[in-house]
Amino acid sequence: MKTLLKKTEAYDVHTEDACALPFSSEISQTEIAKLCDYLTKKTNKQFPILTDSNINLSLLNGNIENFIGISQIPTGVIGPLKVHGTAANGAYYVPLATSEGALVASYHRGARACLLAGGITSICLKEGIQRSPVFKFENLNDLSLFISWFLAKKESLHDIVKNTSRFAKLTDTKIQIEGNHLTISFEYFTADASGQNMVTICTDAICRFMIDQCPVKPSHWFIEGNSSGDKKATAYSFNNVRGKKVTAEIELSAKIVSEVLKTSSALMDRYWRTSTMGVIQSGAIGAQGHYANGLTALFIATGQDVACVAEAATGITRMELNSNGSLYACVTLPNLIVGTVGGGTNLPTQRECLDMMDCYGEGNSIKYAEIAAALVLAGELSIAAALSAGQFTQAHQKFGRKKSL
Amino acid sequence: MKTLLKKTEAYDVHTEDACALPFSSEISQTEIAKLCDYLTKKTNKQFPILTDSNINLSLLNGNIENFIGISQIPTGVIGPLKVHGTAANGAYYVPLATSEGALVASYHRGARACLLAGGITSICLKEGIQRSPVFKFENLNDLSLFISWFLAKKESLHDIVKNTSRFAKLTDTKIQIEGNHLTISFEYFTADASGQNMVTICTDAICRFMIDQCPVKPSHWFIEGNSSGDKKATAYSFNNVRGKKVTAEIELSAKIVSEVLKTSSALMDRYWRTSTMGVIQSGAIGAQGHYANGLTALFIATGQDVACVAEAATGITRMELNSNGSLYACVTLPNLIVGTVGGGTNLPTQRECLDMMDCYGEGNSIKYAEIAAALVLAGELSIAAALSAGQFTQAHQKFGRKKSL
Amino acid sequence: MKTLLKKTEAYDVHTEDACALPFSSEISQTEIAKLCDYLTKKTNKQFPILTDSNINLSLLNGNIENFIGISQIPTGVIGPLKVHGTAANGAYYVPLATSEGALVASYHRGARACLLAGGITSICLKEGIQRSPVFKFENLNDLSLFISWFLAKKESLHDIVKNTSRFAKLTDTKIQIEGNHLTISFEYFTADASGQNMVTICTDAICRFMIDQCPVKPSHWFIEGNSSGDKKATAYSFNNVRGKKVTAEIELSAKIVSEVLKTSSALMDRYWRTSTMGVIQSGAIGAQGHYANGLTALFIATGQDVACVAEAATGITRMELNSNGSLYACVTLPNLIVGTVGGGTNLPTQRECLDMMDCYGEGNSIKYAEIAAALVLAGELSIAAALSAGQFTQAHQKFGRKKSL
Amino acid sequence: MKTLLKKTEAYDVHTEDACALPFSSEISQTEIAKLCDYLTKKTNKQFPILTDSNINLSLLNGNIENFIGISQIPTGVIGPLKVHGTAANGAYYVPLATSEGALVASYHRGARACLLAGGITSICLKEGIQRSPVFKFENLNDLSLFISWFLAKKESLHDIVKNTSRFAKLTDTKIQIEGNHLTISFEYFTADASGQNMVTICTDAICRFMIDQCPVKPSHWFIEGNSSGDKKATAYSFNNVRGKKVTAEIELSAKIVSEVLKTSSALMDRYWRTSTMGVIQSGAIGAQGHYANGLTALFIATGQDVACVAEAATGITRMELNSNGSLYACVTLPNLIVGTVGGGTNLPTQRECLDMMDCYGEGNSIKYAEIAAALVLAGELSIAAALSAGQFTQAHQKFGRKKSL
Repeated sequence: MKTLLKKTEAYDVHTEDACALPFSSEISQTEIAKLCDYLTKKTNKQFPILTDSNINLSLLNGNIENFIGISQIPTGVIGPLKVHGTAANGAYYVPLATSEGALVASYHRGARACLLAGGITSICLKEGIQRSPVFKFENLNDLSLFISWFLAKKESLHDIVKNTSRFAKLTDTKIQIEGNHLTISFEYFTADASGQNMVTICTDAICRFMIDQCPVKPSHWFIEGNSSGDKKATAYSFNNVRGKKVTAEIELSAKIVSEVLKTSSALMDRYWRTSTMGVIQSGAIGAQGHYANGLTALFIATGQDVACVAEAATGITRMELNSNGSLYACVTLPNLIVGTVGGGTNLPTQRECLDMMDCYGEGNSIKYAEIAAALVLAGELSIAAALSAGQFTQAHQKFGRKKSL
Repeated sequence: MKTLLKKTEAYDVHTEDACALPFSSEISQTEIAKLCDYLTKKTNKQFPILTDSNINLSLLNGNIENFIGISQIPTGVIGPLKVHGTAANGAYYVPLATSEGALVASYHRGARACLLAGGITSICLKEGIQRSPVFKFENLNDLSLFISWFLAKKESLHDIVKNTSRFAKLTDTKIQIEGNHLTISFEYFTADASGQNMVTICTDAICRFMIDQCPVKPSHWFIEGNSSGDKKATAYSFNNVRGKKVTAEIELSAKIVSEVLKTSSALMDRYWRTSTMGVIQSGAIGAQGHYANGLTALFIATGQDVACVAEAATGITRMELNSNGSLYACVTLPNLIVGTVGGGTNLPTQRECLDMMDCYGEGNSIKYAEIAAALVLAGELSIAAALSAGQFTQAHQKFGRKKSL
Repeated sequence: MKTLLKKTEAYDVHTEDACALPFSSEISQTEIAKLCDYLTKKTNKQFPILTDSNINLSLLNGNIENFIGISQIPTGVIGPLKVHGTAANGAYYVPLATSEGALVASYHRGARACLLAGGITSICLKEGIQRSPVFKFENLNDLSLFISWFLAKKESLHDIVKNTSRFAKLTDTKIQIEGNHLTISFEYFTADASGQNMVTICTDAICRFMIDQCPVKPSHWFIEGNSSGDKKATAYSFNNVRGKKVTAEIELSAKIVSEVLKTSSALMDRYWRTSTMGVIQSGAIGAQGHYANGLTALFIATGQDVACVAEAATGITRMELNSNGSLYACVTLPNLIVGTVGGGTNLPTQRECLDMMDCYGEGNSIKYAEIAAALVLAGELSIAAALSAGQFTQAHQKFGRKKSL
Repeated sequence: MKTLLKKTEAYDVHTEDACALPFSSEISQTEIAKLCDYLTKKTNKQFPILTDSNINLSLLNGNIENFIGISQIPTGVIGPLKVHGTAANGAYYVPLATSEGALVASYHRGARACLLAGGITSICLKEGIQRSPVFKFENLNDLSLFISWFLAKKESLHDIVKNTSRFAKLTDTKIQIEGNHLTISFEYFTADASGQNMVTICTDAICRFMIDQCPVKPSHWFIEGNSSGDKKATAYSFNNVRGKKVTAEIELSAKIVSEVLKTSSALMDRYWRTSTMGVIQSGAIGAQGHYANGLTALFIATGQDVACVAEAATGITRMELNSNGSLYACVTLPNLIVGTVGGGTNLPTQRECLDMMDCYGEGNSIKYAEIAAALVLAGELSIAAALSAGQFTQAHQKFGRKKSL
């Protein structure tokens, strides 16, 4: 370990510092100018490109506070990604926003192999998003009385949800007891919204009803006890569903593996086995290669809550050599938090990118999820091909930045 | 479970489909136009905003392939975030690119509480990034002969690294044996680059030397056996370092907790305890609230490899009520993959955003990491405050999108 | 790393070696003698104490093969352990078979503190034991057809179970899909038997029915796909139930903490907090101290399947300082695989030990589980007390073996 | 969920109850009689077999308190288990104490297949056992000053260890910082003892020296912060070593797989792949079948700390079909806590069982560990064979108890 700490200087908190950054949730040229002036004065830097955008500011309401400008993320396209699912059915073009060289090229190669093989089967298996309040009682006796009351009232909760949201439906409640802590996981169907705010507001309404009516009051309660898996990879969500659970598969002929992926099915199978041992050794949740790469780029381009990559980039990848020399491959993603309405989906480029995938607006979230899983499968095939055949380094040397060595 | 599959239609792979998307790693208006025409023909959609950018295309070389345009991400600013570290020392303004309402407001509130408390101590404890090739042998006998040879040659690997990269230094090698599989984790210091490509290229050079010289050849080897924790949360990386390991702490007076965070130290302590039980129940790696939110927004704004949020958003948050009524809080992030050179750091808005934090270019990556950890601490305080005091739902109703219920 | 391998000698497999150990599932003095003679001839050692037992050999049928004799395990008693539960209600004496000095003393001290505090509330929350066959199909299409058929037949499975076992009841079925792999987790109530064999036999009957009747056959199927958590700690079982799920709590006055446990509630609280951070850092499943110690000793004494400690010794321990200076403590064990009939419960000393706890035979497994959880709580309190107050080392010096330093 | 709680009765703590069980760490017929009388009076039960033992009571000192008698565990033998290792080299007979029918038969079958194949290569790769004290400071500044001091004193700790124990050697120290918590993991070599008490006493001596001498005192410190993985499966220990790390491998010809294991290499390979997906889905640490079965039975028979099965039964099993139709199989166990001196190794039957393996006393712990890993490999092969070929249910019906359905 290195020396830890250089001596910290004494400092004062000046009142003007403490309150100076002009906070505002209003979005206007005036506010931007005010913020810019302040920042330039403080940092001696200017932000001409960040602030130079002709975006319609009124579209940004509810998406951001202290708005200063627009970050520009390079965006490429791959495809067609041929998908056969329950909602996705066709050849899709997928926008990927990233600054990592070789990423778009790699996913495109995977998509091309799958296209030549006739397309990916991709199926949304389940939907559900949770909010998990926790109630703390004096002791187990009180907790058990509360539960008895709750179980009797359970059916009436549906009405509360109905009166709170047009879209949300309460689909399941799960109870966890840990001493005098009671966690109730409320699971919802939230139509085509990713739904995190919706389930917060509905669960809040349920909890307020419960606290108001219950005969035994908890000593404390919190709307989320940090067990729902929000913004983090968890074994619990991995074993259940969070957002949408999708599985996708393909069979690639020996010829496609050789001609498009430049490796062999046997080498792919060998690499998969070996790397599965590696990922087990690393103590990951699930076993996959690089779901995060494709999902992050797709989420940025299409107005998703990108931080949900933390949970979405979890799952299982499997590859198998078939006796006829072909390769079977599949991915399973149980935590795809995605939406085609709400969040950032209505922002200008985000909407165009959703449109490119034929996924903008209501009725499209399952289709989006099935395409996302197919994308992920294409990416797993391409990276495994590169690693199995020793092309990985060269691909990064070819497409990546040359100056950084 | 719902019905799984609607019958998939029979389909043909038309040759023109299969090769039609005009792939190119060249970035030019000609290529963009070609791609756009193709996409419009195929999807019947247009992308006027996505493609309408006056970005200097030559800057994008090595960052993207099949480039079509620029995704626009709303960006807000928080601060000043006062940080005392080994490299960070001062009041910083932090750009956050997101479309999630309430996020910027929440981090700003946390930063303000910390500012009034005199600032966050944030210390980079360790650095290191790994590439972990795997070698498969006939049996343990061969493997042990290989290791004996390797251990004798270990010192000469430093020269190979030196001849491959100006920046990279080999700092550690760890051996894992699992039957006839040998994994060697090479750990590097990569200066101010996040370094993933650098360590790939250096490790490739090492491996080629090893394969060429070793007396007992492995039957297979792969440059990465998927044990390095690349693009995923792993228990292994959580217990070691991947990128930079930073810990940050603050002590907030009872007055600040009450006046800025609108709760009490006792409630914060209570919430932390309860939610730590929750996150343990969920089977997370580590125990934290929402590191992913702040890190993702920061990474998008500042040209980081955003997919690394998968691993970076891991760590431990702790809060404690002190006997004088103040609140101690700390975060520890062992897997901060960040850089201030290379990757997307040189892109136009990304560079401005790094400049805003005084973090653009060489010599700034430790400072950047210490600011990032301080940001995360501000965010943990703010969300825990909201959840402890029942403000969480209201905050999202106030700042979030109104139309989605 | 040390030198790995000394050269292995060449060797021959002599036919007499290969078949020489006289295997037998018959238990008789003749077989014992035959085995002993063989072993003495081969090893030049004698086993007079191991083989000198007047146990009724006929009792051992179905419990062991290649029987040679009786291992003698020292057994101590703690108590009374006062328990208030749904089935346990009274003061119990608990036998612990171990050779680890200080273990019995430590659990006894914890039990004494709990007794003085009025006893432990211990509640069995859920029961269920699983067998999880896996079915592999050509592709997702076939798999989905199989599931459709299965869901329609689901109700008829209860009859199969009824016809296979007098005791087992099928209580739940859960489906997991991973590409073309379908896992069905069948969960059973198995009365007072731990039930692992019962659920194997019932699930085998179900599977044979399914394979016989289903319109789409899987290409392979296995009665257990290693997902049921049998003989291992898993995040899945930790979040569900395996065997019995029990939670137990106590409130200890400041006086008891001080006089019996020789520490203070504040120190206990402090130790719990700190050690919970430690166990999170270690990447455990759940968060507890040493459940394995008490459970193993109890399981050995009472004829349980001791290997199930691997899964049973998982859960969450929590301790909290109350405002009145008392200490709240609880444990939650979701994977208590225990039985009071079958297995080794009928063996001579095992039966006496079950009798000591008033837990021998039918109708006692919930009581047993509630006592087991209370035992575990007593042990967590005692070790945390020792560690919080710096007595841990001394306790081991006092009670442990003196010669080993 | 079922009704949770029947009303608990009011109760009094009678003084005589609270102190009545006559606690004693002295082992004598007098104490046994006293305890028996008390228990019989309280429970109305008698324990004639438990208490009827002619064991030399003086041998039990330091192994047990409140001793009442001897638990009798049926013990079978398997073998010869042919092992080629660094210390084990020969054909061993392995005692297994269990009451689970079919267990001994299954391990014996696996051993027989391995014997016919020429024996198992089993190699102890590393040794080390940890004690991990935690030090809590006011803040990071104090913590960093403490570390600076510690790093300068590090070398002098070896002398403290030398003066505390004849056997222990300090081999490594690892530092973990989490906010103001500092954990130092001291790793030792403890010769042929499993060493948990030894490392406690040595670390206690180190800590007392540190607390006495350090210029900045911690506000609290604890000899174990629950991060060492003692008595629990942890990702940390799985990735490092705890006790002994051993890997073992075998290659079985197609003929042996078919004739002894009654299955085929292809089916074994298929089962391994499929079940590895299953165990990943279950969220286990590592990926194995039933290490706990063999290890528990071996540990009980040979005087080990059986509760360490919680950590020892962790690792990775791998099986692969070779192109010549043979099967490669290996196991890796990083957390084998075993000893051949100290603990229960000197007890009468335990010593005979160690003798049977030629493992009693000094100089034998590595041999023991290599045999244990070989045993585990035999067990993994046998259960995978049974499951792959559909024999699993029948084996349990044949050898298991018939009455329990």
